[in-house]
Amino acid sequence: MRFFSDNAAPVCSQVLDALARVNVLDTAYDGDRWSQQLDGAFSDLFDTQVRALWVPSGTSANALALAALCPPHGSVVCHRDAHIQNDECGAPEFYTHGAKLLLADGPGAKLTPETAAAALDRIPNGVHWVQPHAISITNASEYGLVYTPDQVAAISEVAKPRGLGLHMDGARFANAVAHLDCAPGDVTWRAGVDVLSFGFVKNGGMSAEALVFFKPELADATLYRRKRAGLLLSKGRYLAAQLLAMLEGDLWLANARAANEGARLLAEAAGERLVHPVEANEVFLKVSADEAASLRGLGFDFYDWAAGEVRLVTSWDQRAEDIAPLAEAIAKL
Amino acid sequence: MRFFSDNAAPVCSQVLDALARVNVLDTAYDGDRWSQQLDGAFSDLFDTQVRALWVPSGTSANALALAALCPPHGSVVCHRDAHIQNDECGAPEFYTHGAKLLLADGPGAKLTPETAAAALDRIPNGVHWVQPHAISITNASEYGLVYTPDQVAAISEVAKPRGLGLHMDGARFANAVAHLDCAPGDVTWRAGVDVLSFGFVKNGGMSAEALVFFKPELADATLYRRKRAGLLLSKGRYLAAQLLAMLEGDLWLANARAANEGARLLAEAAGERLVHPVEANEVFLKVSADEAASLRGLGFDFYDWAAGEVRLVTSWDQRAEDIAPLAEAIAKL
Amino acid sequence: MRFFSDNAAPVCSQVLDALARVNVLDTAYDGDRWSQQLDGAFSDLFDTQVRALWVPSGTSANALALAALCPPHGSVVCHRDAHIQNDECGAPEFYTHGAKLLLADGPGAKLTPETAAAALDRIPNGVHWVQPHAISITNASEYGLVYTPDQVAAISEVAKPRGLGLHMDGARFANAVAHLDCAPGDVTWRAGVDVLSFGFVKNGGMSAEALVFFKPELADATLYRRKRAGLLLSKGRYLAAQLLAMLEGDLWLANARAANEGARLLAEAAGERLVHPVEANEVFLKVSADEAASLRGLGFDFYDWAAGEVRLVTSWDQRAEDIAPLAEAIAKL
Amino acid sequence: MRFFSDNAAPVCSQVLDALARVNVLDTAYDGDRWSQQLDGAFSDLFDTQVRALWVPSGTSANALALAALCPPHGSVVCHRDAHIQNDECGAPEFYTHGAKLLLADGPGAKLTPETAAAALDRIPNGVHWVQPHAISITNASEYGLVYTPDQVAAISEVAKPRGLGLHMDGARFANAVAHLDCAPGDVTWRAGVDVLSFGFVKNGGMSAEALVFFKPELADATLYRRKRAGLLLSKGRYLAAQLLAMLEGDLWLANARAANEGARLLAEAAGERLVHPVEANEVFLKVSADEAASLRGLGFDFYDWAAGEVRLVTSWDQRAEDIAPLAEAIAKL
Repeated sequence: MRFFSDNAAPVCSQVLDALARVNVLDTAYDGDRWSQQLDGAFSDLFDTQVRALWVPSGTSANALALAALCPPHGSVVCHRDAHIQNDECGAPEFYTHGAKLLLADGPGAKLTPETAAAALDRIPNGVHWVQPHAISITNASEYGLVYTPDQVAAISEVAKPRGLGLHMDGARFANAVAHLDCAPGDVTWRAGVDVLSFGFVKNGGMSAEALVFFKPELADATLYRRKRAGLLLSKGRYLAAQLLAMLEGDLWLANARAANEGARLLAEAAGERLVHPVEANEVFLKVSADEAASLRGLGFDFYDWAAGEVRLVTSWDQRAEDIAPLAEAIAKL
Repeated sequence: MRFFSDNAAPVCSQVLDALARVNVLDTAYDGDRWSQQLDGAFSDLFDTQVRALWVPSGTSANALALAALCPPHGSVVCHRDAHIQNDECGAPEFYTHGAKLLLADGPGAKLTPETAAAALDRIPNGVHWVQPHAISITNASEYGLVYTPDQVAAISEVAKPRGLGLHMDGARFANAVAHLDCAPGDVTWRAGVDVLSFGFVKNGGMSAEALVFFKPELADATLYRRKRAGLLLSKGRYLAAQLLAMLEGDLWLANARAANEGARLLAEAAGERLVHPVEANEVFLKVSADEAASLRGLGFDFYDWAAGEVRLVTSWDQRAEDIAPLAEAIAKL
Repeated sequence: MRFFSDNAAPVCSQVLDALARVNVLDTAYDGDRWSQQLDGAFSDLFDTQVRALWVPSGTSANALALAALCPPHGSVVCHRDAHIQNDECGAPEFYTHGAKLLLADGPGAKLTPETAAAALDRIPNGVHWVQPHAISITNASEYGLVYTPDQVAAISEVAKPRGLGLHMDGARFANAVAHLDCAPGDVTWRAGVDVLSFGFVKNGGMSAEALVFFKPELADATLYRRKRAGLLLSKGRYLAAQLLAMLEGDLWLANARAANEGARLLAEAAGERLVHPVEANEVFLKVSADEAASLRGLGFDFYDWAAGEVRLVTSWDQRAEDIAPLAEAIAKL
Repeated sequence: MRFFSDNAAPVCSQVLDALARVNVLDTAYDGDRWSQQLDGAFSDLFDTQVRALWVPSGTSANALALAALCPPHGSVVCHRDAHIQNDECGAPEFYTHGAKLLLADGPGAKLTPETAAAALDRIPNGVHWVQPHAISITNASEYGLVYTPDQVAAISEVAKPRGLGLHMDGARFANAVAHLDCAPGDVTWRAGVDVLSFGFVKNGGMSAEALVFFKPELADATLYRRKRAGLLLSKGRYLAAQLLAMLEGDLWLANARAANEGARLLAEAAGERLVHPVEANEVFLKVSADEAASLRGLGFDFYDWAAGEVRLVTSWDQRAEDIAPLAEAIAKL
């Protein structure tokens, strides 16, 4: 049983079915009838007028978002454990043409208004220093913690008076919303978010993420950047179809709830071993090397996060009975 | 009936079936069992040891290839009608960090050894001028003309003594090989090509192209560039599966033959109206604005290429009976 | 006697004296009292409010100007013989992060409204094509021809309705103004120029050029780009002093007049051999290889421009008696 | 009296004299007779074959050095207080096209082998992470501390087995060598340094720094990068002359000794107030805000470094009697 990554999970049948449904002649790139529906569908979901672009990966969504908010000579504040800093091989620097990430602290890989402000205040005003242009937060965070609407708004109150944009890396946005049980707009634009990387691939999609602009004008130059990066796939309808299938009947939310529930079951079994509260679909456990080996010996696969710490990720397709054996094994350690 | 672009055609059933077949748990990115087969499968096809990477678009394949061959302060010679110059919104400049394209001439959007050498010889040696590092040719060309192995080798003889790499943009490589009826290796590495952008999407694929390195060591840094560009999709097995399905039983060749046959039928009907010989799946016709309008009135869709000239593109899924109505309409003009 | 390049000429005594005058303790970078005078001094000269920055080279002035006018995904129309295209090793591409130069024609390396418009009209609207954001013209041109205020205004009338910026590469702007005998503002901002690279080094300066923004707000981000490129020298007062010395008593104009007069004398002697009218300080002559060799045998140094064509450049420090021997030798050919 | 920055000091008379001496006709760019002497002069100084290029600023020297050692998809380990990280407005990211700086710790803004290794070991091997390609150290450091040859060699022993290049930012290299009283080669190439940014401007120069390659082949591509960045000034002889004047009779060393001696005098007066040992020409003092105000009231100018801490920098032109008033004032606090 694999708890290594939600990227390893298969694709929802509804997504595969949608691919078959759009398998007809249509216009290339994003001129097709499905791509043309994205703005409307995401505007409905978020209850405000947005621009929504498909992109083939979360890394490209994040990098395009940052390039929309920050010039090459600028900088972006993010948590020092953020994916954009640690796991994207410099994609933000590539797409922004060399902007800098300014690293800030905060428990659970979440920025606080204080840590964000401290990072910003360290930058003197003047041409010798890369001036900040944006803050990027990850919801759910790298450690599976969720920013509430109030917490996002508090970050925004740091950003807005300084003229900074606010980006949310939502590779696991669905899991965050499932946890919060709020309207998607509450934890995004209503709380000050300008651009959202809305992840679907970890949540049952195949190869399409949504880049959602709550300031629609930010999308204009992004359309050129997307093309210029080779991200404007010629048969775009197969990406649009995935996103529309995920939105249909709130499949994205159902899938995220299932994954979160799996994590909850593991968390219950883990008790004192938990490194962080479990809010989304990631579980970080204190286990010794021997204990980790014994779990692996039982056929469970997962990631060694740090010395004496492992990461378990649950997926949309895992039911309670798929989780139970690992929960039991953890409880027995 | 649509003759606008082969990008508008649907996806092969074999490709869709392959997506279903790989829809199981596996490793993320390109660690899965299908991605791991690509080097072997393409090495078999080309009869030499290659590195083959999936990428989600032809533009990204071309741009990564050029970045592998040319430093930011260098230049690449290509035809002035090349896709990399005209239709990729500066992707080569983005991926190479600002290298220049040096434009050369040649009939049918094909370079000749003479025109390539002339473009190269215009660049003085010295730090004031962007020194050439590669030549890029397109096979089949923007006008549907095919470089023979001898013609490629003649370009290579211009490139190699000058220490230049040779890239082939093969967005319609399958159509070229179908026309040539040669081994894929004959018109690539045996003729001096270092990197091939091997297109599948126009030929029945969905979202996967192959970047084939005949100098395997060129792939090493490309792996980082692919990730850094957000092109390393997390569920890579769905891209690998497309490529493997296209190679299986030489589906890529059968599809290309079908598209070429459609163009041949149109060419037969067009007679004196042909602007270029028809060798692949593109047909350029001299038609007046009135004639174009009358064809459109009959329900045929196509691209106005220039004043008095239209482009028709046939696709893998068009059978003789799908082509016949347009052929007849052209003959009757 | 050297007619190879005005870069080879020495530095004016007034400039050297100015270096000595500012050789006292002052603030670093551009906070010193001389750098702080530049906006005022150039505003006076141009009879409008400008921002004027020192930079150490003409290439960096041009590249910063283009970066101020064009985003990485955009393009700039220039003459195919322009210095920014041919002689700066890709500096525009480096500073703009990969914008493209679109090449246009025109006699004497000067764009015309028609050739500029033709180059612009070739670019379809849409994300597949790098959209134009600026036009760059060179005054005096690569062939020593001068745009009149009316000619600049006519180019501006192509640029402005399309929302494009207008840059003037004025490496030999002084020579152009000396020829035109107009106010500097007449051939720049009054004719629609947004940014001027105002050259001083070829005209008796040592290591300082002025980047003059007629839209002052364009300077804001440029200050960051200048620093980020390592162009913000720490002892900036030695650059500011050069510029102020050149402006003092219109030394820049006197020097340019002297250089132009030298070229005029050569042009008189050359008669039918002239390839272009001589308006600034460059003279292009038709001479055979034998004739060129015989001139060189007499000790004259110059550049072979093309087959049967040589370029002679006169400098600020050459008096009539310095020019006479070459003029005589040409007349005798 | 100004103790704000050594950049505020004037230029040596020998440097100004040298400008006058080269004020004759010669070849443009770096083809002149003085630029051509640099390789030889610096090879003599370092007692090994080097390539030495003039550049107009320390920031550009550093950025070109890093671009020579690190590809766009790579990273460079440096101290978190390094100038390249904090004070160059992203110049390293601009010149490397987006490589990342990995920040490491160490007392006195100096890396230790342990802290450098720890930063390196945090980077997993694989395409998701920017792989390290170089280490950059600053000698003397941001806090005026000096790496000994043994300390540099120990860093090199971390770099070399991992295949990393080693860069030394020597904005105050002269001050470091003056302190060490060693041969310049001892603390550079003999200790494993591949590229040195050798600063002269803070030490009495005007606008020329030297970029010294101990692996001469690294200079080849740098020549293109220097041109492409607009750093190849057309009258290069005025930069070369500055460097040659500074080398003549070891003026660079005499100047640095003078500046160091000034700092030593201040350090003596400061006693327990010193934040760091004083080894070069920077003195960091613990003083209260009131004390700082009282020093400023006496006419001394300096930089507030942190709460309760000020930075004093001495310059090449300050004699003992210029230092004495501040030393006395500090002693009296």
